Amino acid sequence: MVIDTTEVIGLIAATLTTGAFFPQVYKTWKTKNVDGLSLSMYAFFFVGIVLWLVYGILIESIAVILANVITAILAFILLFFKIKYRR
Amino acid sequence: MVIDTTEVIGLIAATLTTGAFFPQVYKTWKTKNVDGLSLSMYAFFFVGIVLWLVYGILIESIAVILANVITAILAFILLFFKIKYRR
Repeated sequence: MVIDTTEVIGLIAATLTTGAFFPQVYKTWKTKNVDGLSLSMYAFFFVGIVLWLVYGILIESIAVILANVITAILAFILLFFKIKYRR
Repeated sequence: MVIDTTEVIGLIAATLTTGAFFPQVYKTWKTKNVDGLSLSMYAFFFVGIVLWLVYGILIESIAVILANVITAILAFILLFFKIKYRR
């Protein structure tokens, strides 16, 4: 497999969009403040990410599978926090 | 272009993960409550989405370009709200 510039950009993009959820999970875990988080957003987002995972399995893309497994876990944690800590 | 089941799953996934940000933008616009939103998340996420957009342009994928243009706009609005309304 040749890694060209385009694929490097894709990998950096995937790392950033997946990694972005770590500070949100950390912040929500520390503050337990979920008032500003949209339940609909995380519900739709989680289902969408699971479908991206299915898509990655179907096209046999390790990068798509890996990025979406991690994002699915982080989105699920945020969805769980939102439901657990909402007032 | 043949639209097969795999691509339909990808399109539904893209619609959900992009569409998910609409209820978050609406909620934040209505409540102006950004305490629970992570600035780091939206900063990293926005840069990541812009790179996905560049990737979509490089691989000439209309679906990737379209989904990421919309998500970039929504992520930028949330980043703007977070900076504008933070206390």
